[in-house]
Amino acid sequence: MSHHTHNRRRQHMLQLVVLLSALILWFTPVPDSLAHFIAKLPASDLQFTPQTAWHLFAIFMSAIFAVMLNALPIFTSSILAVSAAILTGTLTAKQAFSGFSEDWILLIIVAFLIARGVIKSGLGKRIAFLIIRKFGKTSLGLSYSVIAADMLIAPAFPSNTARSGVLFPIVNALASDSGSKVSNGTRKKLSSYLMMSSMAGLTISSSLWLTAMAANPAGAKMAKVFGVDITYSSWAVAAAAPVLILFFLIPRFLMWIYPPEIKETPDAPEIAQAQLDHMGPVHRNEKIMAAVFIGMVGLWIASSFVPELNKTAVAFLGLGILMIANIFTLDDLSHEGNALGTLVWFAILYSMSVYLNKFGFMAWIGDNVSHAIARMSWPVAYVVLVFAYVLIHYFFVSQTAQMLALFSVFLGVAVDAGVPAELMALMLLFATNFNAVITPQGSSANVIYVGSGYLEAGEIYRVGGLVTLLNTVVFLTVGTFWILLIS
Amino acid sequence: MSHHTHNRRRQHMLQLVVLLSALILWFTPVPDSLAHFIAKLPASDLQFTPQTAWHLFAIFMSAIFAVMLNALPIFTSSILAVSAAILTGTLTAKQAFSGFSEDWILLIIVAFLIARGVIKSGLGKRIAFLIIRKFGKTSLGLSYSVIAADMLIAPAFPSNTARSGVLFPIVNALASDSGSKVSNGTRKKLSSYLMMSSMAGLTISSSLWLTAMAANPAGAKMAKVFGVDITYSSWAVAAAAPVLILFFLIPRFLMWIYPPEIKETPDAPEIAQAQLDHMGPVHRNEKIMAAVFIGMVGLWIASSFVPELNKTAVAFLGLGILMIANIFTLDDLSHEGNALGTLVWFAILYSMSVYLNKFGFMAWIGDNVSHAIARMSWPVAYVVLVFAYVLIHYFFVSQTAQMLALFSVFLGVAVDAGVPAELMALMLLFATNFNAVITPQGSSANVIYVGSGYLEAGEIYRVGGLVTLLNTVVFLTVGTFWILLIS
Repeated sequence: MSHHTHNRRRQHMLQLVVLLSALILWFTPVPDSLAHFIAKLPASDLQFTPQTAWHLFAIFMSAIFAVMLNALPIFTSSILAVSAAILTGTLTAKQAFSGFSEDWILLIIVAFLIARGVIKSGLGKRIAFLIIRKFGKTSLGLSYSVIAADMLIAPAFPSNTARSGVLFPIVNALASDSGSKVSNGTRKKLSSYLMMSSMAGLTISSSLWLTAMAANPAGAKMAKVFGVDITYSSWAVAAAAPVLILFFLIPRFLMWIYPPEIKETPDAPEIAQAQLDHMGPVHRNEKIMAAVFIGMVGLWIASSFVPELNKTAVAFLGLGILMIANIFTLDDLSHEGNALGTLVWFAILYSMSVYLNKFGFMAWIGDNVSHAIARMSWPVAYVVLVFAYVLIHYFFVSQTAQMLALFSVFLGVAVDAGVPAELMALMLLFATNFNAVITPQGSSANVIYVGSGYLEAGEIYRVGGLVTLLNTVVFLTVGTFWILLIS
Repeated sequence: MSHHTHNRRRQHMLQLVVLLSALILWFTPVPDSLAHFIAKLPASDLQFTPQTAWHLFAIFMSAIFAVMLNALPIFTSSILAVSAAILTGTLTAKQAFSGFSEDWILLIIVAFLIARGVIKSGLGKRIAFLIIRKFGKTSLGLSYSVIAADMLIAPAFPSNTARSGVLFPIVNALASDSGSKVSNGTRKKLSSYLMMSSMAGLTISSSLWLTAMAANPAGAKMAKVFGVDITYSSWAVAAAAPVLILFFLIPRFLMWIYPPEIKETPDAPEIAQAQLDHMGPVHRNEKIMAAVFIGMVGLWIASSFVPELNKTAVAFLGLGILMIANIFTLDDLSHEGNALGTLVWFAILYSMSVYLNKFGFMAWIGDNVSHAIARMSWPVAYVVLVFAYVLIHYFFVSQTAQMLALFSVFLGVAVDAGVPAELMALMLLFATNFNAVITPQGSSANVIYVGSGYLEAGEIYRVGGLVTLLNTVVFLTVGTFWILLIS
């Protein structure tokens, strides 16, 4: 039996496991406490019974479970879940597809397309070389420069996946220029360290900006339900202290627990200079791209004050200008099927989690968890909940999926336990980002680094786990103190 | 100056023309009659002024104009229009993006992906070769066979969108097997002609049966208010004469105005036989694909009786099965960026057209028309009204939307002017179908053909416009005579 056939058979076995557990969950009688809880909810326009809520939970949970087990990719799992939800009458088509018209979901998709323009125009490459020319003399300096580049471009990339697609080629070029390769067994000389740095750096660059990760704006929106108003600037201010400390710590921490064999790279600035010379003066496309980029970021920031400046409309305008300037073309668009895939699974899972919430299910879970931590003082409850939220990410393949499933529940429980709502909301939003390297599949942004071969899965569980611990400790200490200070 | 530069410069000139005319339209004072008309409308939840309606018209019209002039591709034009509509406060983001969650729009996108599965599985190829073996000696024969297949399956498909999802993969397979492709610039050899044939064919297959288009039964119901009783058989009898003549004419007409470069393919049947021999017996993937396809079609037909059988959910289920069977993969998805492009432009134009209607603009147009024909004799009024109804479709992105907005208005005006009610009712119902190819966005059934890349938006305005003219003339002459004869 070939390796391939073996894998296929294993996959189908896993799918069968998911299907069976889905059926068991579906036919499990509705827990009495859920039925009582829903009966006590205030009346709404929605027509549903406890059975509906339970069935939606069975479908949603099975979709997540299939992804956790690697039985199905998240796209396949989502489209099967949505058809199950509609065909069984659990959700109406209108409810199930409501997520597709959310402007912030569409923003992610437009950002994917604009990221392609950044790469194509050459602007991304130039910015990276400029930073490397300045900071690239040592391995440590390179690590800092890669993460700094990430943090600088992050506000304009509401997709850390797209951003990893910009950063990876640069890190990869640096790696191969250093002569530290997978093919000849020298990856540990420098390249593995740089790859791990960049991957770990994404956890803090994503934590720093409201627009640096796909699910961040969604979380901010969900926090509004709890009366927490998070703006572009209030997010950045709250994140600044812990993120800057981690920016300082992570390259050194990795130098300690995952050291490169080469620590000095005196030639890197020269290589960057040579590449810059080769690129010549700033091209027309780079100038247009930079202007569009700066204009978009400016309008995004201004959108907090001017309601008409809808972020998605601004992004569509930017994309339209890139298309008129021929920087992003219809041919480029035709290769962006992954953006469609992301739109589909994201919108579906979002819609489902919204209705799981509207049907009272999340509140019921929260009710149960809050009973469990009822006797704890709020600081203890806070620490327990944050650690639990971080550790649960072992079971999630997507940062977004975890947030959609658990953010509101954890926030609700914490607020009931007396944790300040703003503190808890921000910490959970940050945790959604800083727990991303706890596993190789913990973020779609990890995938490209893992795929490079420079990092082995086992190394990521160990090193990524330690980075996640460092992140958690810094955010829980410095971060908590800072947020309480400024709020 | 190179040819390329020349083209780019010409393009930018055209874009300037569109921009200037958009600005002129935008700043033109709102016509008094529109202001008065809107002031008299019953109150609604929507907050808008006559100015809002006029501005939305200016933006929508300019987007259409840009595509007609070939100044911008339909995708670029639409995203710029939607950003203009939102950033000027003409539409809210919620209104402007509402189309994205319409299930029948998502159905088009899923149909795209399933079409890829039909090709990849080999099933499309096999069906295509079977058709070529029988009818493939000439391009004309292929065109006839495609339209005939459409007309035969139409009574069982109350959604021409779903039907286009069934026909498209077969036409697509015919196209790609002919070696006439978009990628190498040979689409005009045969494929564009076949795509245009199938798209034009849908106008007459939808006209032929009461159950061949979603809005047909709704229109028949609305006609009852005017004392016109339309049954399944009276519809088919009335449509039979003009539709059969158009079935004969359309492939020849397209052969004349939009000819394929290859007209005779005497060897094709033999080649098809050789290819069928080469393919051997039906493969596993073809069998699965056929089962999924038949299952989907069966559920689509059953969806008329079972409300939970939402067509889009059924399509997602079919796609999910294809993915589990590895017939459609994530790698395939990553190349389907055009499906994303189609979703974006169609959802945007649809949303705009919906709100142009909700803001009273369409009803105002109808009001003007009825004033204009007040003194005409009934035959003149009849011809003018039918032409007006057909031409107004330039502004509608959905056949159903136009019928719901204008059918009763036009029928009432005509009856007042002395036009026989049954004649007018039938002709308006037919026109709702036969005007569908007047623009690329005129029917959701067009969209999948446009998205294929075989047809350019500008070509559809020209060729589709001429087909619509042919349809209108045949229906107004033969159709009118026939209806008066049998009634």
